[in-house]
Amino acid sequence: MNSDGSEPRLIGVDWGTTSFRAYLLGTGGAILRRIELRRGILHVEEGDFEGFFRTHVGPWLTEYPLPVIVSGMITSRNGWIETPYVELPAGPEELAEKLTAHRLADGLEIYFITGATALDATGAPDVMRGEETEIAGALDTGLTDGLLVMPGTHSKWVKLSTGRIAAFETFMTGEVFAALRDATILGKLMAGTEPAPEAFARGVRAGFASPGALLHRLFHARTLPLMGLLEEWETADFLSGLLIGTEIGAAIAGRDIDCVSIIGRSDLARRYGEALGIAGIGVVETPPDLATRGHLAIARMAGLMEG
Amino acid sequence: MNSDGSEPRLIGVDWGTTSFRAYLLGTGGAILRRIELRRGILHVEEGDFEGFFRTHVGPWLTEYPLPVIVSGMITSRNGWIETPYVELPAGPEELAEKLTAHRLADGLEIYFITGATALDATGAPDVMRGEETEIAGALDTGLTDGLLVMPGTHSKWVKLSTGRIAAFETFMTGEVFAALRDATILGKLMAGTEPAPEAFARGVRAGFASPGALLHRLFHARTLPLMGLLEEWETADFLSGLLIGTEIGAAIAGRDIDCVSIIGRSDLARRYGEALGIAGIGVVETPPDLATRGHLAIARMAGLMEG
Repeated sequence: MNSDGSEPRLIGVDWGTTSFRAYLLGTGGAILRRIELRRGILHVEEGDFEGFFRTHVGPWLTEYPLPVIVSGMITSRNGWIETPYVELPAGPEELAEKLTAHRLADGLEIYFITGATALDATGAPDVMRGEETEIAGALDTGLTDGLLVMPGTHSKWVKLSTGRIAAFETFMTGEVFAALRDATILGKLMAGTEPAPEAFARGVRAGFASPGALLHRLFHARTLPLMGLLEEWETADFLSGLLIGTEIGAAIAGRDIDCVSIIGRSDLARRYGEALGIAGIGVVETPPDLATRGHLAIARMAGLMEG
Repeated sequence: MNSDGSEPRLIGVDWGTTSFRAYLLGTGGAILRRIELRRGILHVEEGDFEGFFRTHVGPWLTEYPLPVIVSGMITSRNGWIETPYVELPAGPEELAEKLTAHRLADGLEIYFITGATALDATGAPDVMRGEETEIAGALDTGLTDGLLVMPGTHSKWVKLSTGRIAAFETFMTGEVFAALRDATILGKLMAGTEPAPEAFARGVRAGFASPGALLHRLFHARTLPLMGLLEEWETADFLSGLLIGTEIGAAIAGRDIDCVSIIGRSDLARRYGEALGIAGIGVVETPPDLATRGHLAIARMAGLMEG
């Protein structure tokens, strides 16, 4: 037993489509060791998820026979085991109740956290796998109500209410940006690598002011340079701002929102923070490593660990 | 002189980025001969536009030394000669006034119809080159006021007022559809080739109801099949409907519109007609060959031809 509170208690794994992150977690949530690979479920050969898992996490388990809790796309149809989505509202308690225990041949039990699904007003479904665990981590920091955004290739806007997820919506903004850059006439203009903050802000304002006009305003990424009203090297940041501004305008439409919490510390998260500021919306940063905090909160709620 | 009114009077050329169409036009607008090539200004080698033109239209000119009028992207920066845009409002009269005469070495004069530019409420510019001539043709059929749509890779929505173009907006919908199909996860689902009219209608209704939510609703093209609420083979038509419905919703936002005129007879134009019907908006078809009708109207207005 370490006297400094760093006794290992749990192994948490965040296993996504293109990444694998495993954490040896100590008393009080300290991250004692971490493995972060840019190889996710897409890169597991012949569906041998157990082999992949044992290769990377096996040495820890030999040393510390701890409970293992896993979140992310690993519970999707293309993952290790497919688990049914939990319906909203859902918080750490519902996620703990719906844990799926998977026993391996040698008796090791792995606990899978399932994803969440939501129906919007039109009856169309939305889904997440992995984000619910980060949100559980955010809830564990004391956040209980309000709107939060999780920037990413597919960003999520999440409404929290009394400590649970009340609703959420996915936006394909990041993937749309990449597709426009790689597969349209706009891409040819995007040679710039220098940041263009003014062009970004201009795009944000245009998108935020009229989210419904996106298919029209995209054309301005071509006409503004054509008419000498934007430098070609600024086009990429104008387009990025236009898309993010459109997303923010759509996500907060009809809501009385003063501030939004952002999960994530990436360059993209910083971009969302800037865009929210330009749109006149306050930003609250959340602490890093919310996935591991979620692993601990859910494991504790499920009685998987001592202390 | 032919007694049946088919005496050649004008050579009209519609020269776009990826197509070249030349027409030998008779008294009263009859198309006596036509050349239609899927090779536009992109395919002219070493900028030899005159050579390309003479190869295809030279034989007509030898037989009939008629005036030649040309419209389309051929007057853009990458075309034969770049002409300044005409500002709105503009109709056949302004287009006739702004014709650019280009004299070749042998004395042949070619008259270029220039494009139009518009500034939207935010000061962002829009441009067209070629469509103004089709619109002049539509005006020549008696249309004077109202909204018309010109479906295409970059569709145009045009507001007519007292026989002139009052305003217009370009939507990149067609190119966005192709980019989503070719460069996102949605493309993998789009294996279907059978038409899926119900999925198309469902997409139209979703897009039309909330044009601002496009970046979110795109994700439904993934989640609906995932949850068994849409067949994978229906995904392409759902997405097509979603984009066109979004465009229609944005184009008519804030306007009191009962019906819209459609220019064009393509499959895409039929799709727009169906989508407008699903959105509860009346559709007025325009006659075919409006570009040549525009060539004649503008040439007549400019005094280029007899009769």
